[in-house]
Amino acid sequence: MPTIYLAGPEVFLSDAQAVMGEKRRLARSFGFEPTGPGSDENQAPVTLLTAEAIYRRNENAMRRADICLANITPFRGISADPGTVYEIGFMIALGRKVWAYTNHPDDYGTRVRSIWYAGLEIDESSGRPRGPDGMAIENHGKADNLMIDAGIEAIGGRVVRALAFPADPARDLTVYSDALRQLAQAD
Amino acid sequence: MPTIYLAGPEVFLSDAQAVMGEKRRLARSFGFEPTGPGSDENQAPVTLLTAEAIYRRNENAMRRADICLANITPFRGISADPGTVYEIGFMIALGRKVWAYTNHPDDYGTRVRSIWYAGLEIDESSGRPRGPDGMAIENHGKADNLMIDAGIEAIGGRVVRALAFPADPARDLTVYSDALRQLAQAD
Repeated sequence: MPTIYLAGPEVFLSDAQAVMGEKRRLARSFGFEPTGPGSDENQAPVTLLTAEAIYRRNENAMRRADICLANITPFRGISADPGTVYEIGFMIALGRKVWAYTNHPDDYGTRVRSIWYAGLEIDESSGRPRGPDGMAIENHGKADNLMIDAGIEAIGGRVVRALAFPADPARDLTVYSDALRQLAQAD
Repeated sequence: MPTIYLAGPEVFLSDAQAVMGEKRRLARSFGFEPTGPGSDENQAPVTLLTAEAIYRRNENAMRRADICLANITPFRGISADPGTVYEIGFMIALGRKVWAYTNHPDDYGTRVRSIWYAGLEIDESSGRPRGPDGMAIENHGKADNLMIDAGIEAIGGRVVRALAFPADPARDLTVYSDALRQLAQAD
């Protein structure tokens, strides 16, 4: 049974154990053995661990895993949780199979316009759209920064996106389940 | 001369070429051969490249480089540019020397409180501070998500932080120069 590292910011939720438990249950139902942040139920709770100990635990789990499935739903802003992004890059460099999913249906560029610049005028006069502060806006139709999407796609992975924004994007597992199903079929 | 991959969001600046040119000049002055996003001056401009081509160019540069020096100054939010975070994880997994610097003096947890929650009440009653939405706030005194700081520190790298927020955090190269100096001495 392949081991799957479930990367994502669920550890920060008020009901983290319930949501992560359900993610692990779903992973097993598709034939994967889950690991990743918060998945070592018999270990010390994260509140008692130093940053260094949490890092070591996660890095060891990444090195032992065959697959990464990362939740890149925007977290506290317009992009994925940075810890999750670190893990995507790390596992791609290790040569693992890496997929991602997001509960946000919009492109990164659309979120920069609608959320970060909140509807302010965008300069479209050159080949590259720019915000009122002159900063270029990625325009590649990707779910997040192109390094994430193109890095995953370069190794044959997929970024599975929601068709619509769910009521509870931090907890909705519809797109997660769909990604697991696709991963199981692609194996 | 060791090759240094200069990771950071400077490619998005209105004066990207000037800022990146100065970063390359400074890297050379400390004995490093710079590479990274936007550093192949004879290649097609980034506006003419697909996401896939930009990714390949950056991944090739990462694989050729000995060192990564990443600008993790918050970009469009409270955390580092996600493309840069991907590159940090990728190069640590490749076994390269990775350092980072930031022009923001505050801990990640301080930014979550002051910027994301904008002074709203934080629940400090348990061992783990939580925002009004119940989400836990990392409390490890790190510059960003612990995976970034602890990942760099686990391999002997350093995260060099500004002592005060500069007037132009997207362009100020004081902390960058300091990181280069420390890197050159540590070599």
